[in-house]
Amino acid sequence: MTANTDEKTPLALLGLGAMGTALARAWLAAGHPVTVWNRTPSRAAALAAEGARAAESAAAAVEANTLVVTCLLDDASVEEALAGADLDGKDLVNLTTGTPGQARGRAAWAHGRGARYLDGGIMAVPPMVGVPEAGGYVFYSGPRDLFERHREVLGAPLGTEYVGEDAGFAALHDVALLSAMYGMFAGAAHAFALIRKEDIDPASLAPLLAGWLTALAPSVHQTAEQLRSGDYTKGVVSTLAMQVAGTPTFLDTAEQQGVSPELLTPYFALMRRRLAEGDGKEDLTGVVDLLAR
Amino acid sequence: MTANTDEKTPLALLGLGAMGTALARAWLAAGHPVTVWNRTPSRAAALAAEGARAAESAAAAVEANTLVVTCLLDDASVEEALAGADLDGKDLVNLTTGTPGQARGRAAWAHGRGARYLDGGIMAVPPMVGVPEAGGYVFYSGPRDLFERHREVLGAPLGTEYVGEDAGFAALHDVALLSAMYGMFAGAAHAFALIRKEDIDPASLAPLLAGWLTALAPSVHQTAEQLRSGDYTKGVVSTLAMQVAGTPTFLDTAEQQGVSPELLTPYFALMRRRLAEGDGKEDLTGVVDLLAR
Ligand SMILES: NC(=O)c1ccc[n+]([C@@H]2O[C@H](COP(=O)([O-])OP(=O)(O)OC[C@H]3O[C@@H](n4cnc5c(N)ncnc54)[C@H](OP(=O)(O)O)[C@@H]3O)[C@@H](O)[C@H]2O)c1
Ligand SMILES: NC(=O)c1ccc[n+]([C@@H]2O[C@H](COP(=O)([O-])OP(=O)(O)OC[C@H]3O[C@@H](n4cnc5c(N)ncnc54)[C@H](OP(=O)(O)O)[C@@H]3O)[C@@H](O)[C@H]2O)c1
Repeated sequence: MTANTDEKTPLALLGLGAMGTALARAWLAAGHPVTVWNRTPSRAAALAAEGARAAESAAAAVEANTLVVTCLLDDASVEEALAGADLDGKDLVNLTTGTPGQARGRAAWAHGRGARYLDGGIMAVPPMVGVPEAGGYVFYSGPRDLFERHREVLGAPLGTEYVGEDAGFAALHDVALLSAMYGMFAGAAHAFALIRKEDIDPASLAPLLAGWLTALAPSVHQTAEQLRSGDYTKGVVSTLAMQVAGTPTFLDTAEQQGVSPELLTPYFALMRRRLAEGDGKEDLTGVVDLLAR
Repeated sequence: MTANTDEKTPLALLGLGAMGTALARAWLAAGHPVTVWNRTPSRAAALAAEGARAAESAAAAVEANTLVVTCLLDDASVEEALAGADLDGKDLVNLTTGTPGQARGRAAWAHGRGARYLDGGIMAVPPMVGVPEAGGYVFYSGPRDLFERHREVLGAPLGTEYVGEDAGFAALHDVALLSAMYGMFAGAAHAFALIRKEDIDPASLAPLLAGWLTALAPSVHQTAEQLRSGDYTKGVVSTLAMQVAGTPTFLDTAEQQGVSPELLTPYFALMRRRLAEGDGKEDLTGVVDLLAR
């Protein structure tokens, strides 16, 4: 058992999957008394051997604590797990991944049962939990004073990033970043596919690709500034017209290399549409407006 | 006029568009005697005032130098510009963007006219030329000894990255990196679209997005290692099965926010196809094999 347990905020943690287990260990390591519950009890028993208190039921875990954290499979499992618990006067922090709409719905549901509600979106994988150098963090949204009250305990396993009062904003930020990641992965997959049949070691392409993507990532600041000002021509170096003119080189190369262009064509189509409708001296920012209607 | 001009390799530069002009200035600043030619003569006249020798014709510029660099609009304009020039015994370095097939064709064409040939793919925009801190560079492919002979002069305006004997490899690397960039831009556009109608400043999303993409860019090393070994399950933290299970959250969020999912769905479709055909314990690397047939 870790020292100073009595001085640290106690909490209940419902859900001991890969992520919940990592969170429980980090809280225990930081000296917080943790009451754990998991639908399949064996996982709670393992944590009990490491210093957690295993509760008989979700309701019992909730009853023993003011701060209740859920880290379950999905939104439906949160409702199911908490069905028999008395949430009146509790501070519910839900780290289960979901949509902004689910977070807002779960917040209303919690309020209806007398609880305060913070939603969280975890930007980390389990091996990053409890390892500050790994840079993992959690987006939080909901009442700011509620976040501030629990900031220290919430910050033990992972960094914290508060993004607003709207309960849906944590999920929205989470999904926005992960969506962007899938775009980057799609681009990288296309790049590796292009060299697949050539005598080029993928491991020699990788550092070039990583360096290039790293160098280009900060370009989102310019996109943001343009969206903010509404002037999509400011600071433009490679115009939309130039870039649209260059697209045949990408499509012809894919064809020469026997690679399907399906991951590139939707973006190119939007670039062309924006060029047809707008100003060729713009950047690529106008694509954002074609997506959001 | 810069000092030491006589000791530095002289060269001919054909093409004084935005990029050619920046290259000419960088070579002049580094002390190389540069003979310039441009289809529209006024641009050459401007460079002459800065120390370049303006040639009457492309043929005259070629005749006066062994090293001939082209930086023209496209592959067809290279053939057109050099139509009347005697290339016998020349070292032609073509920095015009094109496909690997065009580079290979242009190499054969140059060889047929008695010239040696290096192809280049410029990974920079004009403001980065002559500014080493900006990190811009050029991919080169073709005979290694030819690259080595001109390495120093070629390295004056931008860094150099030699990628192989096959004349098409510079263009292939160029297109691979730019294709990956468009994937990342598509992902970022989707992310910005998601918050477009909310009370969220795009400039507050930008640093989170830039940090996230920067943190994830090195994951291409793992993709490369998996492609190399053929084992797509090695080192996997978030399995394909888990990630496919998570895709409805992304699509539902897009729908809730009024954002078209068209930039995400093609990649998700490939993830699902790979899951159906393969091993759910894999990473996302299998998508590469679905693209390259
Ligand atoms: N793992 C990651 O890399 C990662 C990263 C970011 C966010 N997250 C999010 O963190 C949350 C948990 O992820 P995880 O990786 O820990 O998932 P997991 O390993 O699959 O665990 C799922 C957990 O949910 C419980 N559960 C499922 N259905 C339930 C129900 N109807 N009632 C009660 N409990 C139920 C499971 O209990 P049993 O043990 O009884 O099955 C288990 O504790 C998810 O929302 C996930 O999206 C995970
Ligand atoms: N600018 C960039 O950001 C960038 C980045 C990477 C790579 N590149 C590549 O660098 C090359 C040049 O780009 P740029 O930005 O300098 O283009 P640019 O500003 O549009 O200039 C095009 C050049 O090509 C010449 N040209 C066009 N058709 C010709 C023909 N049929 N015969 C002879 N000359 C012809 C033009 O001459 P006139 O002056 O007579 O029109 C001009 O010198 C392109 O392949 C481009 O893809 C550019």
